[in-house]
Amino acid sequence: MPSKVRIALDAMGGDFGAAVVIPGAAISLQRHRGIEFLLVGDRAKIEPELANHPALKAASKIIHTDVAVGMDDKPSQALRRGRKTSSMWLAIDAVKRGEADVVVSAGNTGALMAMSRFHLRTLPGVDRPAIAGMWPTKRGESVVLDLGATIGGDAHHLVSLAVMGAAMASVLFNKPRPTVGLLNIGTEEIKGHEEIRDAGEILRARNLPELDYIGFVEGDGIGKGLADVIVTEGYSGNIALKAAEGTARQMAELLREAIQQSWMSKLGYLFARGAFQALRNKMDPNKTNGGVFLGLNGVVVKSHGGISAEGFASAIDVGYEMAHTDLLNKINQMLNREGGALNFVQTAPEDVS
Amino acid sequence: MPSKVRIALDAMGGDFGAAVVIPGAAISLQRHRGIEFLLVGDRAKIEPELANHPALKAASKIIHTDVAVGMDDKPSQALRRGRKTSSMWLAIDAVKRGEADVVVSAGNTGALMAMSRFHLRTLPGVDRPAIAGMWPTKRGESVVLDLGATIGGDAHHLVSLAVMGAAMASVLFNKPRPTVGLLNIGTEEIKGHEEIRDAGEILRARNLPELDYIGFVEGDGIGKGLADVIVTEGYSGNIALKAAEGTARQMAELLREAIQQSWMSKLGYLFARGAFQALRNKMDPNKTNGGVFLGLNGVVVKSHGGISAEGFASAIDVGYEMAHTDLLNKINQMLNREGGALNFVQTAPEDVS
Repeated sequence: MPSKVRIALDAMGGDFGAAVVIPGAAISLQRHRGIEFLLVGDRAKIEPELANHPALKAASKIIHTDVAVGMDDKPSQALRRGRKTSSMWLAIDAVKRGEADVVVSAGNTGALMAMSRFHLRTLPGVDRPAIAGMWPTKRGESVVLDLGATIGGDAHHLVSLAVMGAAMASVLFNKPRPTVGLLNIGTEEIKGHEEIRDAGEILRARNLPELDYIGFVEGDGIGKGLADVIVTEGYSGNIALKAAEGTARQMAELLREAIQQSWMSKLGYLFARGAFQALRNKMDPNKTNGGVFLGLNGVVVKSHGGISAEGFASAIDVGYEMAHTDLLNKINQMLNREGGALNFVQTAPEDVS
Repeated sequence: MPSKVRIALDAMGGDFGAAVVIPGAAISLQRHRGIEFLLVGDRAKIEPELANHPALKAASKIIHTDVAVGMDDKPSQALRRGRKTSSMWLAIDAVKRGEADVVVSAGNTGALMAMSRFHLRTLPGVDRPAIAGMWPTKRGESVVLDLGATIGGDAHHLVSLAVMGAAMASVLFNKPRPTVGLLNIGTEEIKGHEEIRDAGEILRARNLPELDYIGFVEGDGIGKGLADVIVTEGYSGNIALKAAEGTARQMAELLREAIQQSWMSKLGYLFARGAFQALRNKMDPNKTNGGVFLGLNGVVVKSHGGISAEGFASAIDVGYEMAHTDLLNKINQMLNREGGALNFVQTAPEDVS
């Protein structure tokens, strides 16, 4: 466990760049005094922000570049134009060269994934990376993956997601053997793709010491908190996440509109304000911000692009936690030790998706 | 357009059987005086309920059977045990024999789909049926399909879903050319499975007179009401639906709990009660109850199993609307007329999912 956690920030990423990244870093530093920051980006934009945060300034080094990846750049464009020069690349490069333990960026997801994959490469035993996120549930939070890094995938891929997700949950929730469920649909005999059934059989047969496989979980089981880790391939994971986020936003808007309809309900709102605030806190995207790229030789955390400084601080917190608890080594051990999680399935037929 | 709509009800289906089905039918009959009911099930259970609803009794015939498909029966079990004898089968059979225009059942989804498919067969040009449902949106409602009848599928399948969904939306929303979107994930260059891209190209190239293809829609675009019809294969459709339902339930529970925390917020609730009621009405599953099986030689409506009489009445309403507006003929025409929607793609490679 490193005594100091060194975090590289893509200071130009996101809709607001340094104006959110620097104040966000200052907030996170108050919570975790042991962070050292590498701030990668345009010095002329970073320094004025830093001037407002002397403690952060003292804990930071700047790596200057005025090249930034655009929020709408395609991954291939970003790689072509921003390789070796952009703030995103140089932040990833700091991890690659061992100068940082984790990189956090609010830049565009496709570009960040493409650059991370290109430069950091996947871990031995992992074909394709994943994005893992935190999902607010009735019981607290669950890790859900893959949220859209990789579309489709065979049983081997799903098992590797289960292992990586379990490693993440074990360090985040401090549970030696988190529960893992495979996302599936309900009707008994048409249950799921072949690969989901196969992955379930493998997980059950292996009975791994690091995770407790509990079977299939339906879409409404995620929010019930039926498992600490919910595993699915990236297309359905992304659809599920966005459908849920959309519904939460829709309900909040409906409620707001309904309350505006009469002075009675406006008055009621004043009295019940505490309750609404509690609801907002629980479902606040700022609090669960930070998708973690898993399966790479390095930890990369992706923040929402349009987030506030408080939200960006949450993404840094996630990165801190991952580095502080040595997630990467834990995943590596689980994946690749003698008799490790994936040995059993590496003889399975190659990706057929 | 039939002058009288004849509806066959599986009076034994659902968690409560005749105790919900019969009062539900009475409610729907008040709204649609032109319905004639075929009540299929155990006469000893139906008649006591009917005694409370003289108007319904006058508009109904009973087809007696004391065989019922269990809510937990597997589809193959249900077919083996309930074929030609169960209330579910005989209700479907009434449609098959032309004695009813539509069948409504709250029985188990897998069994209902298996029996419907086995007995009614798919429409010419349709390989596999779909379940379509109504999704409450910011703008009103949208048709979403497939909600879980068929897992995976090629571009041909997705195009047939688009056509069937558009037919349903055009009669329900009274729009000659409803908008249609394909559900997909956001990141530009890893956008979706091959078959989704192909289906998009076909829909764009065909520029069908019956539907206005607007492109890809992300998971949070469903609730925004970005399209009248949202098309996806059944696995992701089911996951999206349940993730959204789960989130809505979770938020309602959180709000309830938060309000119970203090007397101030309880008092506020009393004042804002109207607003909460409006929210409940909008998101009420009773109001959007009724999944429609599309692609079969007959219209089958599936109600939730655990629904109230009011909710079951909504499912009957949906069935009434479908029959009253002659949905089946409309779909048939769109699918199979000269130069029809599917002719173009029937030369596409077979299902590769």
